[in-house]
Amino acid sequence: MTTDHRETVAGGAPARVLGTRPVRLEDTAKVTGQALFGADVRLPNMLHGAVLRSPHAHARIISVDKSRALALPGVTAVVTGADLPGDGTSYQQQNILAQGRVLYFGHAVAAVAATSPHIAKEALQWIDVAYEPLPAVVDVAEAMRPDAPVLLGDLHTDEMGQETEGSTNVASHVQYRRGDPERGFREASVIVEREFRTETVHQGYIEPHNATALYDAGGQVTIWCSTQGAFGVRQQVADVLGIPIGKIRVIPLEIGGGFGGKNDVYLEPVAALLSQKSGGRPVKMVMGYDEVLAGTGPTSASVIRVKMGAAADGRITAATAWLAYAAGAFPGAPLWGATSTVFAPYRLDHLQIDGYDVVVNRPKTASYRAPGASNAVFAAETVAYELAERLGIDPLEFHRINAVQEGDRRADGPLYPRIGYREVLDSARRHPHLSAPLGGPNRGRGVAVGIWMGGGGQSSASASINADGMVSLVTGSVDLSGTRMTLAMQLAETLGIPVEDVRSATADTASIGYTDGSWGSRTAFSTGRAVHEVGRRLIAQLIERAAELWGISPAAVAFEDGHFSGGGRRAPFGALASEASEAGSPIMAGATSDGAGVGPASAAHIVDVEVDPETGKVQILRYTAIQDVGRAVHPAYLEGQIQGGVAQGIGWALHEGYVYDEAGRLLNTTLLDYRLPTCVDLPAIEPVLLEIGNPGHPFGVRGAGEMPIVPPPAAIANAIYRAAGVRMEVLPMSPARILEALWAASA
Amino acid sequence: MTTDHRETVAGGAPARVLGTRPVRLEDTAKVTGQALFGADVRLPNMLHGAVLRSPHAHARIISVDKSRALALPGVTAVVTGADLPGDGTSYQQQNILAQGRVLYFGHAVAAVAATSPHIAKEALQWIDVAYEPLPAVVDVAEAMRPDAPVLLGDLHTDEMGQETEGSTNVASHVQYRRGDPERGFREASVIVEREFRTETVHQGYIEPHNATALYDAGGQVTIWCSTQGAFGVRQQVADVLGIPIGKIRVIPLEIGGGFGGKNDVYLEPVAALLSQKSGGRPVKMVMGYDEVLAGTGPTSASVIRVKMGAAADGRITAATAWLAYAAGAFPGAPLWGATSTVFAPYRLDHLQIDGYDVVVNRPKTASYRAPGASNAVFAAETVAYELAERLGIDPLEFHRINAVQEGDRRADGPLYPRIGYREVLDSARRHPHLSAPLGGPNRGRGVAVGIWMGGGGQSSASASINADGMVSLVTGSVDLSGTRMTLAMQLAETLGIPVEDVRSATADTASIGYTDGSWGSRTAFSTGRAVHEVGRRLIAQLIERAAELWGISPAAVAFEDGHFSGGGRRAPFGALASEASEAGSPIMAGATSDGAGVGPASAAHIVDVEVDPETGKVQILRYTAIQDVGRAVHPAYLEGQIQGGVAQGIGWALHEGYVYDEAGRLLNTTLLDYRLPTCVDLPAIEPVLLEIGNPGHPFGVRGAGEMPIVPPPAAIANAIYRAAGVRMEVLPMSPARILEALWAASA
Repeated sequence: MTTDHRETVAGGAPARVLGTRPVRLEDTAKVTGQALFGADVRLPNMLHGAVLRSPHAHARIISVDKSRALALPGVTAVVTGADLPGDGTSYQQQNILAQGRVLYFGHAVAAVAATSPHIAKEALQWIDVAYEPLPAVVDVAEAMRPDAPVLLGDLHTDEMGQETEGSTNVASHVQYRRGDPERGFREASVIVEREFRTETVHQGYIEPHNATALYDAGGQVTIWCSTQGAFGVRQQVADVLGIPIGKIRVIPLEIGGGFGGKNDVYLEPVAALLSQKSGGRPVKMVMGYDEVLAGTGPTSASVIRVKMGAAADGRITAATAWLAYAAGAFPGAPLWGATSTVFAPYRLDHLQIDGYDVVVNRPKTASYRAPGASNAVFAAETVAYELAERLGIDPLEFHRINAVQEGDRRADGPLYPRIGYREVLDSARRHPHLSAPLGGPNRGRGVAVGIWMGGGGQSSASASINADGMVSLVTGSVDLSGTRMTLAMQLAETLGIPVEDVRSATADTASIGYTDGSWGSRTAFSTGRAVHEVGRRLIAQLIERAAELWGISPAAVAFEDGHFSGGGRRAPFGALASEASEAGSPIMAGATSDGAGVGPASAAHIVDVEVDPETGKVQILRYTAIQDVGRAVHPAYLEGQIQGGVAQGIGWALHEGYVYDEAGRLLNTTLLDYRLPTCVDLPAIEPVLLEIGNPGHPFGVRGAGEMPIVPPPAAIANAIYRAAGVRMEVLPMSPARILEALWAASA
Repeated sequence: MTTDHRETVAGGAPARVLGTRPVRLEDTAKVTGQALFGADVRLPNMLHGAVLRSPHAHARIISVDKSRALALPGVTAVVTGADLPGDGTSYQQQNILAQGRVLYFGHAVAAVAATSPHIAKEALQWIDVAYEPLPAVVDVAEAMRPDAPVLLGDLHTDEMGQETEGSTNVASHVQYRRGDPERGFREASVIVEREFRTETVHQGYIEPHNATALYDAGGQVTIWCSTQGAFGVRQQVADVLGIPIGKIRVIPLEIGGGFGGKNDVYLEPVAALLSQKSGGRPVKMVMGYDEVLAGTGPTSASVIRVKMGAAADGRITAATAWLAYAAGAFPGAPLWGATSTVFAPYRLDHLQIDGYDVVVNRPKTASYRAPGASNAVFAAETVAYELAERLGIDPLEFHRINAVQEGDRRADGPLYPRIGYREVLDSARRHPHLSAPLGGPNRGRGVAVGIWMGGGGQSSASASINADGMVSLVTGSVDLSGTRMTLAMQLAETLGIPVEDVRSATADTASIGYTDGSWGSRTAFSTGRAVHEVGRRLIAQLIERAAELWGISPAAVAFEDGHFSGGGRRAPFGALASEASEAGSPIMAGATSDGAGVGPASAAHIVDVEVDPETGKVQILRYTAIQDVGRAVHPAYLEGQIQGGVAQGIGWALHEGYVYDEAGRLLNTTLLDYRLPTCVDLPAIEPVLLEIGNPGHPFGVRGAGEMPIVPPPAAIANAIYRAAGVRMEVLPMSPARILEALWAASA
C-alpha cells in the first residue's frame, strides 16, 4: 500500500518514527526462502516422528499393540497416552495423546519415531489399535440434548445451565444480566429475534505445526518450534510431561501464521517424549495439512439466538443473547470473547447474555483472531441491521444513537476507557464509499460494527547499546505480524533515534524474562509498554554517564529530541551511547509490563456485494474497514492486518466450514476441499486507520490485529440482504445456501 | 576429584552455595554426544566450504584463476582476498584471505562453496594459483636481522627498537624501566644471565574451528560458530566484510576447547562471503586438524635473554629481560603478557624489560592461556632458581625474600592490590610434597612460581523469574569451563536459594548486552560481578513487591538468608518470587560490569621428574600446583582448570613445538606428529586452592583459568636440572635435546 489511509482524530504527540513505514529486516529473507522456520531445523542423528490419528469420531480404545511397529527396521520408539504421567484425567494430556477413548476424527492415538519420515509414516500402519466405535455428536445443539452421546464423564451442567446429576456435554455456563430485559422488550416498538448457526472454521495459517525436540540424557529438553509464544509452549510441555519448566528451553523459529492457532501445543510434548524414548536422539515432527485441519484447534461452531428490541427513536430497549459454542472434544470454547463482544457497541440498560461451552466430537478448539467474536457479532449485527431497517433509521445512525463511549459499562463488568467508537461511526458516515453508486443490479451494500476488548498480558524486554551506538532490542514476543519492527519503532521514538539504529529480535525462553504469547492484539501494546520503559531506563543511564564524562551533575544533563545536553555540550544519542558504553560497563536495561491499560478497538465495515441469482455466488465488490488503532505505529502493517483480517472474515462468511459425514468424520481435510478465500475471491480492501490514543499506552497504541475479523460476516450478510432480499442466518453463506434462501423467499 | 584441596586463608563470608560441587546440567549431553556444537549445525540448502591454503611459507601471488573450479558441477562460489572490501592494507583481512602474497605455510588463499564437502575439497585443486616463491624466515632472531627477508612493507622498527627508514620485521618495541639496572647489577653478589628459546605451540583444543553463515538477501548475516566470544566474532566479521555490526547476529554453540585460540575469526567471514556469493544459501565450513595447526593462531615462539643479580642475603638487586616474540605473519605477539609477567613475583628497584613483536613466516599467533607468560617465566624462573642455588638459599625462601605484596608496583605500572602470593609461598613450603623422598635415582624436584594479572573486560547479565519461582540467568559469556554453573552459583548465593533453582544460559549477540569473550580468566570474575548485581536488583524489586502484597512499606521488608520478612510475614525467595511475578509484571533485572577490580592470581608449582639418562625421556612423577583463586566458587572446576593448565604446560615443556623445514614449511600438521601430552605422559596433578579474597569482587573471586599454565615449563626445567644436572634453555625439552645437553655436560 502506498496510500496512507490515516485520519488522526485524537492522537498523541507528534512523532518522528511512529507513523513511518520502514521495511522489515526479515522480509527479504522470508520471500527468498532464506528465513528459518521450524521445518528447517535439522540436527545430528535426528529422527522423524509421525502421529497415528483416529479414524473414528468417537470410540473406545480397546487395545494398542505397538509390537509390529517397533519391529520395523528404523523405528526407535512408539508412544501412546499411556506413556504420559498422571492419572489420565488431564484434558490437555488426553488431547495430545488419547487416553482410553478417541473423541474426534483425527484425534492423536499414538506416535512413532524412526530414522526417516517415510519409515515413521509406514510404521503407523503397523500399530494395531482395536476400537469400539461409539455414537458421536458433532452438532452443538444436539450435543446439549439430554439424550446426546456423552463425551466426557465429568461434566454436569444441563442445557439450562443448571447443575445436574447425570453427565452432560455442557462444560460451563456464563451469564451476564443487567436491568430487566423483559421490561425492556415491553418498551420496544420493534423486536427482532433470530437464530444463527455458524460452522467450525480453521485459522488456515500457511505453515503446518512442527516441532523438533531434544530430550537429553541429563533430562534437559530443548524444543524448536513454530509457536505464538515460547513461554506458553514451555509451560504446556512441562504440564503434559510432568517436568519442571526449568528443564525446558523453547526456541521459537520464524512463524508462518498463527492467528491464535499456535498458542496450544500438539507435537511439542510428543516429540520430546519420543526423543526421550529414543535414547535422547532429537525428533522432528511436521504435520501434513490434513493433520492441521483434523487434529489441531479451529474455532467454535455455534448456535446463537439474539433478540433485540428498540423504541421508535432508535434506542435499543433490551437485548438478549443465547450463545452455545462448540468447544470441540474438551472444554474451552471462547465464551468470554463471545459474550463480551456480542452487544459491545450498544449502550444497554437491560440485557441478558448466556454463554454455553459445549463439548462435541470435533477437534478441541483453539483461539482464532478475536476468538468467539465474529460468530456473535454476525448474529447481533444482523439483528441490529434489521431493527434499524424496520424503524426506518439508517443503520449507522442507529448505531450512533446506541453507541457506547468512555465510562459506559461493558456487559462483562468493567467500564469502557477512552475508545474511538463514536469517531469510527462518524468516519464511516463521512466515507465516500457510503454514497458511491452501486453500479449494477443484484448488488447491495451492508455495514456492521464491532468492538473488541483485546488482551494485555505480561511482557519482558531488554535492550543494550553496541559499540557503534546502535541499540539491540530483544523481547519475548514472537513476531507474527512485524512486531520486531513496531517494537523497534517504539524504542527508536523513545530514544529519538532513527529506527535503522535499532535491531530487534525475539529471544528464546532461556534468554529473556517471561512473556506471554503473541495473542490478544497485545504485542505492540503490552510489549510496547515494556519497550518504552526500557528506553526511559537507557536514557536515565546515559544521563548519568554524560554527567560523568562531562564532569557535571546528572541534574544538569537534559535529554530532548534525541540529544543529551548540559554544561555547554550536546551529543546525539548514538554518539554518547557509543562513547559511554566503551568507557565503562556496557549499557543495558530491562523492563517488564503487566499488560494494564488495554485500549479496546472498534471498527465499522462497509461492503458492497453482488449476488448471482442463478448460482447464489456472492462476489465482494468493494470493502472499506474503518478502525480505531489508537496510534498507527507502522501504518502499512496495520493496513495489512486489517486487509488480512477482513480476508479471513470473508472466507468465514462465504466459503469456509468443516463438513462432517453422518458418523462424524471430517470430509474436507485438504485445502482443495476446505475452501480458503483466494485472490479471485477478494476485492482490494481499503483500510482507514483512526488514531484515537489509548491513554493506557505511552504512545496511545491499541491492539489492532483481531478487530478486523469481527464485522465481516455481519457486514456481508447485511449486504446480501440488500442485494438479494434474503436474511442469512447461517455461515458460511455458500452459494447453495443462498440459492436455497432465494428459492424459499420466492416460494 | 572427591578430595577437597582447599585452604581458606583469607576468604570471604561463609557461603551456602559457593564452595559446593554441583554437576553441570550440560555434562550428560556432552558426554553422550547430544550437546550441539558448531559442526552439528545443518540448515536447508546448506553448502559446504573449503579453504585453499598456501604450500609456500612466503610467496607472491602472481595470479589466481578460479574459472576451472567454478566450472566444476556443484561449485557455487570461489572467493579470494580480492573479494574483500577496502584497500588491502588490513592485516586482519590479509590473514583471512591472502592479498597479493602469502606469508606462511597454510595461509588461506581462496575458498570454495559447493553442494557437498567433497566437491568443495575437489574444487580446491582446480583453482589455479601462480606463485613466485620468496625467501622465508621462520626464526624470530633471524627475522630481526637487518638482512632478513621482509614480510610486510610497513614496519620500520629496527632490532634495537629504534625507528629506521628501511622496512623491518619488528612491529613494535615496548620497554619498562625502573631505577638503574646497571647500578643494581653492581650491587649483586651473584649474576646469572642466560638466553632461552621456545618453540611455537598450539592450544590444541579438541574441536576444530567451524562456522556456518547465512548471508540473506536482505543483507542480514547470521553466524553459528565455535567461539570464545560471540560479540568479538560480530565485530571482526563486521571489520573484515565492511558491514555494520547491527547486520550481524552471532550464535555461539557449545565449544570444544578454546584456551585463547577461539577469539580470532578465520572461517566466519569467509563463510559469510561465500554465502553472499552463493545467492544467500547458507555455507558451513569445518577445518581439518591440519588446517587448525597450520592455519590458525598458535602462541609465540620466542627468544628471551634474562639477567638477574642478587645480593648475598638473597635480595634481587637488578633484573633485565629482552624478549623477542614471534608474532607470526602479522603483528600482535603477546608482549603485555610477557613483559608484565616475566618479573611479576619479584620486588625490584632496578629493572629493565624490553619486548619485541616480530613478524615471521609462521601463522599469525593468537592468545594461548596467559598469553606470553609461560615462555617468559620459563626464562626468569630458571635464572632465579640458579641464583638461589648459587647463593645457597632454598628457592622458595629466595622467593619469599623477594616476594611482592599489596602496594608494590608492577613492572608495567599499576600497584598490586591484595594478592595471595605470600600465602601461596607459605603453603608451598608447608606442603608435604616438598619434603617427600624422591624414591630413586635420576630424579629431581623443581619449583617455580608465577603471578598472572588476568583480565577484566565488559560483561552483561540478565535474570528473570519464572512462574515456579525459579530464576533464569543469561549472560553473554561463552562457557568454556563450567561458567554457566559458576555464574548460577554466584546468583544463587546472592539470592539465598539452591543453585538448582537457577538455570543459566549463554545468549547470542542479539539477545544480551555486550559481553567480551571468555578470555583473560575473566568470566567468573567480571561476568560474576554483573550477575551479583543482577541478584541485588532482583531482591530490590522483590522487596517492593513484598511491600505491595503485604501492605507495608518497602522499608519494613527485610531480606536475609534467602527469605523476605516484614509485618509479621516471612516468605522464601522462590515462593515470593512466584507469587509476585504472577500478580504484576514479570520480574527481570539486568546489570553490567566494566571489569574493574581484577585480582591477580599467583601460584607455586612443585614437580618431581625422572630423567632417563639413556634416552633423555623425562617422566613426570608428581605434580603439585598451589594457587590463590580468591574464592573457590566451584572447587572441582578450579581443580580441573589447574590440572588442565598444568597438563598443557607439561606438553609445552616436554613435547610440543612446530617443526619447519628449510623452506619454512610446517612439517607436523597432524596430531600424530604434533605431540600433545596424553594420559601416559601425565601424573595425577594435585591442585591446592587457596582462598585469599579479591576485594574487587563481592565474593572475592579471582580469575583462575590462565595461571596454571605459567609455571610448568620453569618448574620442570628446574626439576630436570636437579635430576640430571643440566640447565635447559630451550623448549620443548625433548628427549633429543636432553640427551644433547647430557652429552655436552659430560664432554
